[in-house]
Amino acid sequence: MEVPLSPLGLVARGLRLYPGRVAVLDDGRQLSYAELQRRLELLSGALGRLGVVPGDRVALLAPNTLEALECYTAIPRTGAIVVPLNTRLGASEYRYILGHSGARLLLVDITCYARVEEFLPEFPDLTVVIQRGRIDGRLNYDELLWAGPSLPFDPEAVAESAVLSLNYTSGTTARPKGVLLTHRNTFVNAVNMILALRLTADDVHLHVAPMFHANGWGLVWAALAVGATNVPLPAIDAQDALRRIRDHGVTTLCAAPTVLTMLLQAAEEDPPPSGVRLAVAGAAPPAAVIRRVEDELGWTVHHFYGLTETTSFITYNEPPQGIEQWPLLARAGFKARQGVDLPLSGHARVVRKDMSDVSPDGQEMGEVVARGNVIMSGYYRDPEATRQAFAGGWFHTGDLAVRHPDGYIEIRDRAKDMIISGGENIPSLEVEGALYRHPAVAQAAVVAAPHPHWGETPVAFVALRPGKVVGEEELVQHCRDLLTHFKVPSRIVFVDELPRTASGKIQKFLLREMARSDNKT
Amino acid sequence: MEVPLSPLGLVARGLRLYPGRVAVLDDGRQLSYAELQRRLELLSGALGRLGVVPGDRVALLAPNTLEALECYTAIPRTGAIVVPLNTRLGASEYRYILGHSGARLLLVDITCYARVEEFLPEFPDLTVVIQRGRIDGRLNYDELLWAGPSLPFDPEAVAESAVLSLNYTSGTTARPKGVLLTHRNTFVNAVNMILALRLTADDVHLHVAPMFHANGWGLVWAALAVGATNVPLPAIDAQDALRRIRDHGVTTLCAAPTVLTMLLQAAEEDPPPSGVRLAVAGAAPPAAVIRRVEDELGWTVHHFYGLTETTSFITYNEPPQGIEQWPLLARAGFKARQGVDLPLSGHARVVRKDMSDVSPDGQEMGEVVARGNVIMSGYYRDPEATRQAFAGGWFHTGDLAVRHPDGYIEIRDRAKDMIISGGENIPSLEVEGALYRHPAVAQAAVVAAPHPHWGETPVAFVALRPGKVVGEEELVQHCRDLLTHFKVPSRIVFVDELPRTASGKIQKFLLREMARSDNKT
Repeated sequence: MEVPLSPLGLVARGLRLYPGRVAVLDDGRQLSYAELQRRLELLSGALGRLGVVPGDRVALLAPNTLEALECYTAIPRTGAIVVPLNTRLGASEYRYILGHSGARLLLVDITCYARVEEFLPEFPDLTVVIQRGRIDGRLNYDELLWAGPSLPFDPEAVAESAVLSLNYTSGTTARPKGVLLTHRNTFVNAVNMILALRLTADDVHLHVAPMFHANGWGLVWAALAVGATNVPLPAIDAQDALRRIRDHGVTTLCAAPTVLTMLLQAAEEDPPPSGVRLAVAGAAPPAAVIRRVEDELGWTVHHFYGLTETTSFITYNEPPQGIEQWPLLARAGFKARQGVDLPLSGHARVVRKDMSDVSPDGQEMGEVVARGNVIMSGYYRDPEATRQAFAGGWFHTGDLAVRHPDGYIEIRDRAKDMIISGGENIPSLEVEGALYRHPAVAQAAVVAAPHPHWGETPVAFVALRPGKVVGEEELVQHCRDLLTHFKVPSRIVFVDELPRTASGKIQKFLLREMARSDNKT
Repeated sequence: MEVPLSPLGLVARGLRLYPGRVAVLDDGRQLSYAELQRRLELLSGALGRLGVVPGDRVALLAPNTLEALECYTAIPRTGAIVVPLNTRLGASEYRYILGHSGARLLLVDITCYARVEEFLPEFPDLTVVIQRGRIDGRLNYDELLWAGPSLPFDPEAVAESAVLSLNYTSGTTARPKGVLLTHRNTFVNAVNMILALRLTADDVHLHVAPMFHANGWGLVWAALAVGATNVPLPAIDAQDALRRIRDHGVTTLCAAPTVLTMLLQAAEEDPPPSGVRLAVAGAAPPAAVIRRVEDELGWTVHHFYGLTETTSFITYNEPPQGIEQWPLLARAGFKARQGVDLPLSGHARVVRKDMSDVSPDGQEMGEVVARGNVIMSGYYRDPEATRQAFAGGWFHTGDLAVRHPDGYIEIRDRAKDMIISGGENIPSLEVEGALYRHPAVAQAAVVAAPHPHWGETPVAFVALRPGKVVGEEELVQHCRDLLTHFKVPSRIVFVDELPRTASGKIQKFLLREMARSDNKT
């Protein structure tokens, strides 16, 4: 017998088995699984009354809230495709995505409405529903929900190979691309999460990673499948995160490395409970940050690697036997590697241009490519980009990595972030790793600036920890002690804060523009 | 992207990631994952040279050995269908299964050869290969293996919906039926095992359950997927099992309840290390046995429920938060329930004859039915039995159960083992549970005997613990103290040993015959 492999089936099990457990804790609001089920059925009914049919695109623009969580879970029940919108985009990107996706319904949190209001008249056929507030002339989410009747859900009524979501990439270099993820992709990713984080009904998961990203949302599915409690964090606010961790007995969370540095900083004033299992993802975490999290917070770091195009994660740093007894420094260095294939993700390789495997010597660099059930079905309405991404039958990540003799892969850089100076490769991550080892450095990003003689030269942007002082000269000397000479930044720019995407990734294209326009070397 | 969901993909990952770890420990023989991979590729090559092609049925008659483990893993790589033969059948059953399955190749362990030798001339087209020994005129397994060349394996070359194995049910009442299990069935079951037993590369699994049963073999897939060590136990010998547990640092095993009573008995002389995670399956375990395992051995019991037709398990006794702190008696009683749906198994229900759900009151009995990706595709060449098994679109287990208010199901009896006396249902398991609570009782089985007035009456067969003595009268009084009067056995027959199937299930049909022919009531 075959029944559809869909995260909706996993969640249906969670709703069936754990009616009395707490499903969502959103400050004042506490919902049991039975109450969540009631709301999901009401929402399914409301979507049906709005005319949503299978294959429709339904866009959602919201921070991490109960409403977002239930929309991400209920929209696919109708057979419609969720289009999650990043809350930090500009009006032109929202306009592009709404047009490209052909969305017929937009659910928008009141706090985000101003970002889309102006151009909405261009989409006369788009139905707009406001969450957590009221706008004259617009539908209100709660009213819609409670108007009834509700619609029960049959987890076998969805098609495994159908598209569940259309996630637009952040588009740091080009127009956003629409990543098509199927029910089956999403199911396999959720099971990987349950396995790798060992999630159970006893867990309380703080949703730090935005749910509009594949990794944030993936953890909603995983947590609801096992009957865990979901605590949405509506904004990346480190104090608020630490408060919820303490107040709600949080056991697991997932965050990008830059969010970790914010948590570490806030924790200096207000130390959180130890013992949290922390999934780090979204960018390569510097070993120094991992070390601080394990040492200063007493949390266990679980490192995951992947892209939107891989439903979130392909590899993870599987803990070798006894690693928790290793010396802190060795452990943090090891955990900075992206690791090995997740149990169900498929097969990730590091390959040369001719698609042969690099030697597993920790030296030879190649591109990470992968095949497996977490790989997207393609880019929406973009056959050319899809063809390029799947050249040679493998999905190309655009990440450059080495493979160590023990089989663990380690990302050296995004292909486009690699600095090439006098014919030598300078991985920006390596230079950043050195900067992070300086006690005054809170955040660091290294990009290429044009250079008349060498072609490119590394320029570092650094934000210092509060109360710490260090000059450019001292920091350059610190790098000289740790790096080959040509990798040492030719200039260091001190900034208050690095520009970040909604998921906490540093926006290097902005830094490159700054380095280019401001080039004095 | 979709790639086939097959346990072969899981194992390919294990072979890729853990080349240096110990894959199999078979007394004198120790194989790393790299060595196992080499042998699997040699075996695949050998099967190809014997002309095995996709869809062929390949039968295997062997106890739990390295050879059996590698055959179960390598045969499906060729696209052929494994037909595992129970080592305890009679010649007429082997003859039936070989004929019905149309097997073209039989791999047979030297210790089992005598059971089939006589009738093999009836199968002139069947190629026979002898394992762990030599028979004149027959092919030898090792010679075949090392003749080379080997054949590498592409985990994407199998079809997810293709049949992986054809498992014949033990046929206690009728002719054996051939259960068709697909790659996808087997994949989902293996992932369930990894999740529920929390298997990792650090585990050492003792294969007590025979690999020719779906549950034993399922654990081979699960253990190889995560890089754990496999210790095959060739015969159900409690002393030998305890020795291997100690010598090899065994952390997990799976056994039927009757095997547990044997282990408990042997452990009185020779206490094994504590801390083992014990999966109990194959029959409903009496609470008294669970209590003894947790109390006397210090092991943790994980209770699974399912049938060959469900690839092995549909439900498990998911441990509620803090259960390990419960009083022993309450904990054992709870763990005797068959529990809730496994994470990926689908949906098990307890239904009335009209397919409506029984009330979850722990009282109303109904049949366990299920849908999901662990359910077989059907019975081979038996459309009528398949139709009956799937009446109403749900697979019918033939097990009678109640559902408790917390959602946990509890099997009351096999439908065919229920005793009906004067119009009252007497679940044989309930009477057995009472008998097991007497300190002198090692094994107990209760069956119906014909009765002129009441229709049926319960008769108990009891084997005592060594050195213990109890009379029929005392045991009947013990039952009177615990059971409603009409459930008390009308007669108790003391035996040295209960007749068991290869998986340790008590053969109640034999006891029923004894009770019938020997009826003095």
